[in-house]
Amino acid sequence: MQNSIHQEIDIETSDKTKINDVDFNNLDFGKKFIDHMFYCDYIDGAWQQPKIVPYQPMTIEPSARVLHYGQAVFEGMKAYKDDDGKAFLFRPEDNHRRINISAARLAIPEFPKDYFMEGLTTLMKMDKDWIKPGIGNSLYIRPFVFAIEPAISAAPAQAYRFMIICSPAKAYYTGKVRVLFAETYSRSANGGVGFAKAAGNYAAQFYPTSLAQKKGYQQIIWTDASSHEYLEEAGTMNIFFRINDTLVTAPISDRILDGITRKSIIQLAEDNNIKVDVRRVTVSEIKEAARNGSLKEIFGTGTAAVISPISAFEHSEEVFEIPDQDDAYATLFKKYLLNIQHNLSDDKHGWRYEIK
Amino acid sequence: MQNSIHQEIDIETSDKTKINDVDFNNLDFGKKFIDHMFYCDYIDGAWQQPKIVPYQPMTIEPSARVLHYGQAVFEGMKAYKDDDGKAFLFRPEDNHRRINISAARLAIPEFPKDYFMEGLTTLMKMDKDWIKPGIGNSLYIRPFVFAIEPAISAAPAQAYRFMIICSPAKAYYTGKVRVLFAETYSRSANGGVGFAKAAGNYAAQFYPTSLAQKKGYQQIIWTDASSHEYLEEAGTMNIFFRINDTLVTAPISDRILDGITRKSIIQLAEDNNIKVDVRRVTVSEIKEAARNGSLKEIFGTGTAAVISPISAFEHSEEVFEIPDQDDAYATLFKKYLLNIQHNLSDDKHGWRYEIK
Ligand SMILES: Cc1ncc(COP(=O)(O)O)c(C=O)c1O
Ligand SMILES: Cc1ncc(COP(=O)(O)O)c(C=O)c1O
Repeated sequence: MQNSIHQEIDIETSDKTKINDVDFNNLDFGKKFIDHMFYCDYIDGAWQQPKIVPYQPMTIEPSARVLHYGQAVFEGMKAYKDDDGKAFLFRPEDNHRRINISAARLAIPEFPKDYFMEGLTTLMKMDKDWIKPGIGNSLYIRPFVFAIEPAISAAPAQAYRFMIICSPAKAYYTGKVRVLFAETYSRSANGGVGFAKAAGNYAAQFYPTSLAQKKGYQQIIWTDASSHEYLEEAGTMNIFFRINDTLVTAPISDRILDGITRKSIIQLAEDNNIKVDVRRVTVSEIKEAARNGSLKEIFGTGTAAVISPISAFEHSEEVFEIPDQDDAYATLFKKYLLNIQHNLSDDKHGWRYEIK
Repeated sequence: MQNSIHQEIDIETSDKTKINDVDFNNLDFGKKFIDHMFYCDYIDGAWQQPKIVPYQPMTIEPSARVLHYGQAVFEGMKAYKDDDGKAFLFRPEDNHRRINISAARLAIPEFPKDYFMEGLTTLMKMDKDWIKPGIGNSLYIRPFVFAIEPAISAAPAQAYRFMIICSPAKAYYTGKVRVLFAETYSRSANGGVGFAKAAGNYAAQFYPTSLAQKKGYQQIIWTDASSHEYLEEAGTMNIFFRINDTLVTAPISDRILDGITRKSIIQLAEDNNIKVDVRRVTVSEIKEAARNGSLKEIFGTGTAAVISPISAFEHSEEVFEIPDQDDAYATLFKKYLLNIQHNLSDDKHGWRYEIK
């Protein structure tokens, strides 16, 4: 029941570009935005005229429901450029599908696919200079939708704004990530919204993560809220464990985000005859594997950092260091993925989406 | 470590009042706002000049962190007037304490008590005409704070806005509330943010609640996410069960909001020699009590409706009707509370706070 794009996008171009004010070698993530933004409002039961306008602040009522009840979901995706100046997205239809899965769980109306793809590609074409070539460079794309209805009763809003804003990103080297396995705090409940990219899921992690950071850990690996015995995912990454030569990762559930990088890695592993076990992973087996040397790697997967190798974890006050691995799967898969994204290798699964 | 109010509130008064445009006998909750609003920004590590200005829309960056990561918490409280025109708040310091408990869990800086009380009472005095006398009439007060820093990295913001907006409310008769006991969806996890008035907790309930409404139930009584066997609270109310002449209510935990109405009822029950058991309540015992006739009442408690009697519940496709009760505790406690709030009875616990 998606309305089809019955009208062109209204476009108002910016008088001048801000691109020369940006030091692309020194980017502080998420603070600089490209010249234009896309938006479309939902009013009276329908998505209205989609628009692209110069990036700018907007007006919102103090009673806008998003400020009170967190009715907002988002996506995170990237555009890449090859050395010939061709620009690409990576599996963008999956982001569209996922934002609508998130939206449905938060009682937000779904956003039509043609509006999404049209808005996205038009914006990319207008601000193509902001996508820099070179492995590691990318343009981070943030589609999001939030409740704007000015009424503070605790019920789904009648009005929403869908937007796409974009911020140039540098190679995101996380260095050696040390993580804490969650024993007290939790990210999500059975029957909750953990599988959705719901705004509130992220704020809920800030405080526990700040405690972990004080102990010297950059991230938390969340466990199930009932027993804290099952390893689930990190704040913005899915998690893989390499036990000997097998990769193990938790199945998707209502507590875990269905990561696009995760499923791409599972496919790439299969392509390369690396065994992947998708099954529940317990804290005790990972500790045991770390002790007996069969735990070769842990890494996180997500759009932002692609793959983040994890060098140590702590659980119950015990710290486990994971020795560096020659021919690490993390390195291998990161290379495979970046090569596909930057048009440097074959794309046999049709994941690349050229912007033209 | 709260900074004291080193400067007066900056006040800009409205040229004209909107009060004559409002039909106080026909209020649609949360859509009309009083003439002024209070706000105070947190920038560079400190709360800045507090201000009262005419109620108006505001400017926000599309990258403001609240829109992406739901970093926002709020409060709900009310002002009442007696027939002599004196206006009162009800336990306002508890709302201040609670918004800071919520804020801490979401990594939001605490708001100083004197700013809160000063902002609140000044605003009430300026717009006192909006508080109408008469049992049931009140002014709903919404303090809230949200992340405004324009940067989309997933980390606590460096800039926030604290606001107070207010909306006149009529006697809120919910009629006979029919509820569904949660068996699939959940409101909060152990170690999560359920005890906080975190914005995202509310959006997460909208979809399951809409499913319940389609089945003819106005609200869901949430159960624990692990077993769905323990009855916890409703979306915006705590819950009491009357078994014979004893009231039973779940203890506060990290999943349950510490309701001010709830704790007031517990105190009033004690004052009136009514026994209250604060203990875990199971679905099976309540079904059994409904079957054998010992379940006399269920009611919800919260600032909005004070007390909402519940007339039926469903669990596992079985519907239990709760017969009307002469001398219902719900009626009794509602009267006690409203009388205290409207200055019609003694206030031996010092809950009333006169605005002068
Ligand atoms: C909670 C969570 N898990 C995992 C991921 C990884 O998903 P993807 O690979 O689609 O970026 C993200 C976000 O990117 C996330 O927010
Ligand atoms: C989740 C939740 N539980 C209970 C309550 C009742 O709390 P209070 O009595 O302080 O209004 C509220 C809100 O008012 C709430 O949001």
